[in-house]
Amino acid sequence: MSSAAGPSRRSQVTPFAVMEVLAEVARLRAAGRDVISLCAGEPGGGAPAAVSEAAARVHAERLPLGYTPALGITELRTAIAEHYRDWYGLELAPERVAVTTGSSGAFVLSFLAAFDHGDRVALARPGYPAYRNILASLGCEVLDLDCGPAERYQPSVDQLAEAHARTPIDGLVLASPANPTGTMVTHSELTAIADWCRAEGVRLISDEIYHGVTYPQPGAADPRGVCAAAVDDTAVVVSSFSKYWGMTGWRLGWAVLPEDLVRPVDALAGNVALCPPAPAQLAALAAFSDAALQECEGGVAEFARTRDLVLAQAPRLGWGSAAPADGAFYYYAELGQDQLRRWGDAPSYAAALLDATGVALTPGDDFDARAGSRHVRLSFAAGHDAVAEALERIITWQADAS
Amino acid sequence: MSSAAGPSRRSQVTPFAVMEVLAEVARLRAAGRDVISLCAGEPGGGAPAAVSEAAARVHAERLPLGYTPALGITELRTAIAEHYRDWYGLELAPERVAVTTGSSGAFVLSFLAAFDHGDRVALARPGYPAYRNILASLGCEVLDLDCGPAERYQPSVDQLAEAHARTPIDGLVLASPANPTGTMVTHSELTAIADWCRAEGVRLISDEIYHGVTYPQPGAADPRGVCAAAVDDTAVVVSSFSKYWGMTGWRLGWAVLPEDLVRPVDALAGNVALCPPAPAQLAALAAFSDAALQECEGGVAEFARTRDLVLAQAPRLGWGSAAPADGAFYYYAELGQDQLRRWGDAPSYAAALLDATGVALTPGDDFDARAGSRHVRLSFAAGHDAVAEALERIITWQADAS
Repeated sequence: MSSAAGPSRRSQVTPFAVMEVLAEVARLRAAGRDVISLCAGEPGGGAPAAVSEAAARVHAERLPLGYTPALGITELRTAIAEHYRDWYGLELAPERVAVTTGSSGAFVLSFLAAFDHGDRVALARPGYPAYRNILASLGCEVLDLDCGPAERYQPSVDQLAEAHARTPIDGLVLASPANPTGTMVTHSELTAIADWCRAEGVRLISDEIYHGVTYPQPGAADPRGVCAAAVDDTAVVVSSFSKYWGMTGWRLGWAVLPEDLVRPVDALAGNVALCPPAPAQLAALAAFSDAALQECEGGVAEFARTRDLVLAQAPRLGWGSAAPADGAFYYYAELGQDQLRRWGDAPSYAAALLDATGVALTPGDDFDARAGSRHVRLSFAAGHDAVAEALERIITWQADAS
Repeated sequence: MSSAAGPSRRSQVTPFAVMEVLAEVARLRAAGRDVISLCAGEPGGGAPAAVSEAAARVHAERLPLGYTPALGITELRTAIAEHYRDWYGLELAPERVAVTTGSSGAFVLSFLAAFDHGDRVALARPGYPAYRNILASLGCEVLDLDCGPAERYQPSVDQLAEAHARTPIDGLVLASPANPTGTMVTHSELTAIADWCRAEGVRLISDEIYHGVTYPQPGAADPRGVCAAAVDDTAVVVSSFSKYWGMTGWRLGWAVLPEDLVRPVDALAGNVALCPPAPAQLAALAAFSDAALQECEGGVAEFARTRDLVLAQAPRLGWGSAAPADGAFYYYAELGQDQLRRWGDAPSYAAALLDATGVALTPGDDFDARAGSRHVRLSFAAGHDAVAEALERIITWQADAS
């Protein structure tokens, strides 16, 4: 039992290693240093103009902004359902769409609705650290599935089956494209995983917030990513306006829910959130306009150009094995033997790099408690020219320092 | 353990009785009926003009709206801290202010940071049902403190001490003004409760979201309500822009945290919420301008005028004992013997009233599982003229039906 003398045990969340880097970035910038931060998981361009204009109108015309239904306004739920037809050819009842306060809100509600205290949920390692921390705060146990280069950074059915045979799991969070690795699963891989989950009574939560931020070959299947709801109607899909639409700070996301979780999520949302932000809901109706989608495609094309640059320059970095960056805007790589010998680990490397060059990278520790301290994540959301300059600084500094 | 075959046990939240009323309101309105809903816990006027204009500018000028720090932008934390000086004469470090996604976000984060699974938290009954439902979903036990007319609808130290002696509690949520009763605690009552909590290691969470929506006599002490942070720096204060500022759908609130909970809430917020909505944060800086505060005071004056009307007409309603409505915009009363004889209980009464007159009230069941079904809550946030018309319809209908 906790007491008023102190915080709860479940609030003892491991601080993110990136916070120290970001604090140093702020300190250096305040001191006038020219810093290029490649830490951020957010596009710099912001929302499409059509969405910003819609939001400005909502406020200028003082539209009513009271509580909305807990799962969002019908128009937006319908617009999101239609988006699934446009992108995936999937007919989706709008009632299965729950608009949420960012994907964070969708994760909290989905985890509460799907898992009880003591339930065990499997996660790929490396992976987004908030999954683990949210689950832990809600009393769930986390089972790490180590997914390195050999596994193409994604769990397989064999791996799941083996883990489940040792200690049964109740859920699996799968992210495609994943953070920090950018790796994606194919239609057949996702189908195999979803089939296995359904057969074993394991709830699949599919994080699809980076869908659309993808770099398919012309004519490739599933160019936006494979949608779990198209493969298995017992899976939960979590998505967001934050990445493809660049609306990170607006805090607007959604879940596509299986039928049996609609009422529980509705009831939970009405208590833990009341409703997602009303101004953002109204503005987001413009997110599916032709103009907005065209602007988003322009943003993805810019990510693609920057990704090409990073992949072209990668050999000059002299780092170790890197994830394939199928989607999202991250390049996740092990440092090379030279760097590890010289600086010991990724946090020391990142601190030295920032100090010497003003380039900030995220050490992998936050994503992987086992092997992350040998890895760094480079976000190319900062834009082509900033990344080009940063790469030159890194390469020059490594050469000078070795 | 749950399974993918079904929702979690903790998602089995009792549906709100008011939802049936609201569904009927929607049905009647769609059918063209003239409905006056006195169910809503939100002011109809919306945000102050200065806040709406600031929000319109934020979007028109396309200010950056990326992730903010998890506890909000420094300018807003500072502005809120200064607000505590203006209203309560309290010097507050801005670092102790956590901006949150509505007061809902503040409750979730405070409960997670203060209480572990299995901890027991006391609540006044009748009370706001989301406290109970959030706590239950987070694995906490709830202890009901029955607070009727004899207790002036608020818990006392004697009552707490007696309950604690039977089964120790870890926390207390106190609301002043309370929902649904509007009752407030005095400075000496709150001090006594806070002192007892601190001495017993019980964490006090003080819900102050209705502060400022108060009806003090001229020269009264603590005209805005008594702030728990001014009485005890180990208490958590939860507040919001939703009620006094009328910004319900914007989802912006805050907590004033004791020192020991700042870091845990920061870490939790960075995982479960990332940050509160950025556009609302920027716009809310205008909430403390003279123009905005003057507009809010006008709103409270209108609530006061409507409250006077309700209290003046109350004898004609023939209802039973009512809470004193010191603050907030609710009139919570037991139905009279006549009504209970004729209609049996509050849900039946409310359904018959809505059907016959188009006036919607909230049955008390949601606020009190024990005695609520004999009570109704009338929200006078709908405005003076709407409430005047509704009262006449109720009085006429009761006379005709008896």
